[in-house]
Amino acid sequence: MQTPVRSQVPMTERILLLAIHNHQPVGNFDHIFDLAFRMCYEPLLRELGRHPKFKFSLHFSGPLWDYMEKKEKACFGLVGEMAARGQAELLGGGFYEPVLSVIPEEDRLGQVLLLKRYIEKKFGVKARGLWLAERVWEPNLPRSLARAGVEYTLLDEEHFHYAGIDDIHASYLTEDEGRCLRVFPIDKKLRYLIPFRPIDEVCSYLDEIAAQGGLAILGDDGEKFGLWPGTHKHVYEDGWLGRFLDTVDREGITTMTFAEALDRFPSRGRVYIPPASYEEMMEWVLEPEAQLAFKNLKRELSGPLRRFLRGGFFREFFRKYPESNNLHKRMLLASREARLHPDEDARRHVYMAQGNDPYWHGVFGGLYLPHLRQAAYGHIIEAEKRMPLTKGWSCQDYDADGRQEIILRGKAHSLFVKPSYGGALVSLDSLRLGRNLLDVLSRRQEAYHLQTPEGSPEGKSIHELAKALPPGSAGLLRPDPNLRYSALDRFFAPETTVDDYVSGRSADRGDFVGADYQFRFVEPKRGGQRKRTEKELHLSRRGNVVLENASRPVMLFKRIVPRPDGLGVVYELENPGPAALSFIFASEWNLCAFPGEWELEPEAALFYGRSVRLDCPQAEGLWLYPLQTLSQSEKGYDIIHQGICLTAVWRLDLEAGAARSVEIVLTEKHGS
Amino acid sequence: MQTPVRSQVPMTERILLLAIHNHQPVGNFDHIFDLAFRMCYEPLLRELGRHPKFKFSLHFSGPLWDYMEKKEKACFGLVGEMAARGQAELLGGGFYEPVLSVIPEEDRLGQVLLLKRYIEKKFGVKARGLWLAERVWEPNLPRSLARAGVEYTLLDEEHFHYAGIDDIHASYLTEDEGRCLRVFPIDKKLRYLIPFRPIDEVCSYLDEIAAQGGLAILGDDGEKFGLWPGTHKHVYEDGWLGRFLDTVDREGITTMTFAEALDRFPSRGRVYIPPASYEEMMEWVLEPEAQLAFKNLKRELSGPLRRFLRGGFFREFFRKYPESNNLHKRMLLASREARLHPDEDARRHVYMAQGNDPYWHGVFGGLYLPHLRQAAYGHIIEAEKRMPLTKGWSCQDYDADGRQEIILRGKAHSLFVKPSYGGALVSLDSLRLGRNLLDVLSRRQEAYHLQTPEGSPEGKSIHELAKALPPGSAGLLRPDPNLRYSALDRFFAPETTVDDYVSGRSADRGDFVGADYQFRFVEPKRGGQRKRTEKELHLSRRGNVVLENASRPVMLFKRIVPRPDGLGVVYELENPGPAALSFIFASEWNLCAFPGEWELEPEAALFYGRSVRLDCPQAEGLWLYPLQTLSQSEKGYDIIHQGICLTAVWRLDLEAGAARSVEIVLTEKHGS
Repeated sequence: MQTPVRSQVPMTERILLLAIHNHQPVGNFDHIFDLAFRMCYEPLLRELGRHPKFKFSLHFSGPLWDYMEKKEKACFGLVGEMAARGQAELLGGGFYEPVLSVIPEEDRLGQVLLLKRYIEKKFGVKARGLWLAERVWEPNLPRSLARAGVEYTLLDEEHFHYAGIDDIHASYLTEDEGRCLRVFPIDKKLRYLIPFRPIDEVCSYLDEIAAQGGLAILGDDGEKFGLWPGTHKHVYEDGWLGRFLDTVDREGITTMTFAEALDRFPSRGRVYIPPASYEEMMEWVLEPEAQLAFKNLKRELSGPLRRFLRGGFFREFFRKYPESNNLHKRMLLASREARLHPDEDARRHVYMAQGNDPYWHGVFGGLYLPHLRQAAYGHIIEAEKRMPLTKGWSCQDYDADGRQEIILRGKAHSLFVKPSYGGALVSLDSLRLGRNLLDVLSRRQEAYHLQTPEGSPEGKSIHELAKALPPGSAGLLRPDPNLRYSALDRFFAPETTVDDYVSGRSADRGDFVGADYQFRFVEPKRGGQRKRTEKELHLSRRGNVVLENASRPVMLFKRIVPRPDGLGVVYELENPGPAALSFIFASEWNLCAFPGEWELEPEAALFYGRSVRLDCPQAEGLWLYPLQTLSQSEKGYDIIHQGICLTAVWRLDLEAGAARSVEIVLTEKHGS
Repeated sequence: MQTPVRSQVPMTERILLLAIHNHQPVGNFDHIFDLAFRMCYEPLLRELGRHPKFKFSLHFSGPLWDYMEKKEKACFGLVGEMAARGQAELLGGGFYEPVLSVIPEEDRLGQVLLLKRYIEKKFGVKARGLWLAERVWEPNLPRSLARAGVEYTLLDEEHFHYAGIDDIHASYLTEDEGRCLRVFPIDKKLRYLIPFRPIDEVCSYLDEIAAQGGLAILGDDGEKFGLWPGTHKHVYEDGWLGRFLDTVDREGITTMTFAEALDRFPSRGRVYIPPASYEEMMEWVLEPEAQLAFKNLKRELSGPLRRFLRGGFFREFFRKYPESNNLHKRMLLASREARLHPDEDARRHVYMAQGNDPYWHGVFGGLYLPHLRQAAYGHIIEAEKRMPLTKGWSCQDYDADGRQEIILRGKAHSLFVKPSYGGALVSLDSLRLGRNLLDVLSRRQEAYHLQTPEGSPEGKSIHELAKALPPGSAGLLRPDPNLRYSALDRFFAPETTVDDYVSGRSADRGDFVGADYQFRFVEPKRGGQRKRTEKELHLSRRGNVVLENASRPVMLFKRIVPRPDGLGVVYELENPGPAALSFIFASEWNLCAFPGEWELEPEAALFYGRSVRLDCPQAEGLWLYPLQTLSQSEKGYDIIHQGICLTAVWRLDLEAGAARSVEIVLTEKHGS
């Protein structure tokens, strides 16, 4: 007896191309890797393995391969079996899942070849295609990809619409410098159908596509098969996936790998695709107000005119978030050095620092997650430790802001100072800890902060409306008035209290933070027993402090004094005016320290198991409060501890012409 | 007595940065160069020379420098004087004014260094800035430009709006791979004011900009100072320019070169600019219907939302115009070869073939101008002649359509065949003539063809409406049903006349043109005295011909037979069906030949002073008509002779199972 066949089976062949993309970021917690395998990757692989006729393409990013090979041998074996019998085509990509368009061309090649060779070595198959991280496209990619032997990739259907293409049920060709790349459009409707809608609905859509002679093309996150909230029950316990795979088999729907489709079907012509990513990404990169305006505009415009609408493009994250820019430019700096000083380990650490996750923010945490940022900085530090970098001071516009930054490479630390931003310390890397101690994230307004809890005329989706703001989070919505660098020089009225400061009620009376400081390098004064010492960096500025409604001039000298075990910051404050001045001088430090990682003493703060100390002799007080951000994630809102703000304060009374020195010394114990 | 000062002089400094860009394409007529100097460049330089305090930046493209140095020594000297006294800063660029984003990165470097070194050698000054041809921007340019030592360029204000920037009265910084480039926004309003509006109006706008603390920044075509219709009288005879320069002096408006501004003013921050050009260019690249839809949309949306609207991007010209693509990919092929076979002359010819003009079409002729296309092909041919290319047949997807083309490199000719497009001949280069004999342009619908003479709801500008279609041009608006390659295989009903054909009344009854042909290479049959002969290319297809309302199968064999002095195209047509067939078989050739360059004999056509002949033995007739296009230019509409369509026809009566051979032989005399 034959299996009953649904009524409207078309005469044309139904062909489904499915690519599953699995990724966990460099530096993600082991328990998340484990959870992802338990809830998602393992049951997914097992279910697919039970349907050997179902062909598909499969991508795991490098961090997952590394983890799987070590700790999930059963899954690793399952992948090997499916690859060996031709059921699963293994897709290449940048090994650590970098956004290829924002890493140097040489590293694109290196990252792609690393994964290609891994797949060849471990599974004996050739990766002909590439999963493009976050589908961030720029038109010069085909040249880089052709150099790495990549034959095709998948892009979102939006990419094609921007290029004036309506028919997304076929592959196309694009080129740069005459080097070709085949591109497959990911069907957005299919993304929403699988695995969320009834199987009949999926099949009807496959019928529809086949009736037009097209291919059903889907490439999507594997995590929607079990890791996204609610999907494990739906996909496995309630059996959606098994039933779907059974149906595909029973109904004679043809499945094939993308490589097979590449060989079997010619492209439908050449296209030129402007920079793009998936639709949401190009919204997230916009500033909050622009994001809302753009969403409204999209709602108003429908149909083919949508092709003319464009949000931002990925690189703008480096403008939107200076912290992302700093990480990006530190990575580029390390990459340049790694090309000058070839060392395989160093290069690998640079590649690890290039994983896309901490460089951006949308509905997923990314940039907001300190452990991902720290992992990236950690790998930059590890890379730099393996290179013979010249010790001492140097000037360079490493962060591409048009101004010189100052870099100090020491035996125990690397220090990055911005004279153009109040002579602030931007990064202080502990080579021993492998951490940038100053890596925190400023609080800024995000588009989702603008959303009213009860919905709004901006027309939020139901999904978004369901996310209620947590109680007491109002304070977290107050944007920081400046970037949270360290050694920020503030002035307060004499009566200011720590509470005023923490609550944001006390305005900075000075105009020093973020201002342009002069700088020069000075030989240290002789004396003491040290023989050959590093020069000091002398920063200075004449600025103004508003006290009792009058603006008063103040001269500020800030000397950065390198020490073998850290650095000293020596301030001299001078009152050049005719009137006496009384104020609180505050040196604000924003440190990456998590609960349990800091302790306070009367004139010192200790960090990281007391291995790092910040001595503030004679300080009137040490004001300390935790830095938290309120960000959006797939689960709703997250309150994330980013670090602490530690401010050493001195009450100063300066007669006309008088000066006073205060000092902060950061030292780190050697050894572990 | 003091000069009277206008009332509303602001307290802030009025600063004007002016860059003048002058360009004539490679291959343009000498009389146009001469006219441009008489009407524009010379009076412009003289007027500026008379105002030595007026500082500005000046760009001439390479073709103009070459011409000026040889034939306009006075102008050359004037430029030298102004450069020497620091009045004029000389701007760099790609020497032959290529669109940098669509040439290989190595050639970007080569072209930019060529002009940089030229300026240094001839004028002893350093070109720190770059004029970006057609302001076609892609985000990876900073890396290439930094490699060439370029410090800044000018972009349109649109570029900045797309990046979310409103304030266009300052410079910004952008970067790629951490390599920085300063970018100055060209003020669109200033472009429309200078030199068209009263000087008071210009000054008021300068006041307005200065009052906001901004810089007035303009970079524009020098040709608007004398060469554009009506401007010579306005600018010189009526004295607009002299009065403007006097006013600038008298009013104390500060002028400075862009290099000075670069050193004096820091950038206003880092921006990331998506691919863009000036607003009109991004419309022109769209298909006609899309272009109208986009223009309507722009009219509906105003204000800041415009930043989210995006037309096409430059590379799409290669999709829109296959002829542009062919030229582009031939250029890339020659460039690749030139990198394999370094030869300075060859490389220079490749660079000359990269000039942007023949690759695109907007309000200026560009692609539609045969002499510019021919010049580009000519330089490709000259480059290839200087390289040791392997003779004989090869297969390669040189035009990036995903299909193999076939290339024959002979002693006298290079031939490019597309089996995937009816086995048509795409290019036939005569190495002796330095011409691609098959370079013609198909007629296609352009957006401006859709315009109704009396205006329309599409809301054409007054300028556009003023352009009336020339009488009798209706036939020129009929788009060609296929690309005008050669050896296109057509079938007509037996009664078809040449008039039917020329008027387009006679449909092609076959399905061969544009269809996929099979191909193989075959050793020629022995016989004759030639010793070692080139293989033949055998193309074939079984297709259908509709005759008397019935579809009949036909087998077509097309053999391309290389000859030392040309090539033969030998057809064999076979009737595999059971019924007798009567039809006209036609081999259509579209040749680049201008009036006076062709003659007809009963069974042959002669070209180029009888040096090339196309013999069609036993042909029933040779149908010939000129190919003309109707395109838009700055003056209105142009009817341009692109070449001729020559069709050899044979009346064939094929019994069931019968076959018949016909032949066309193209030969070219050696020597001049």
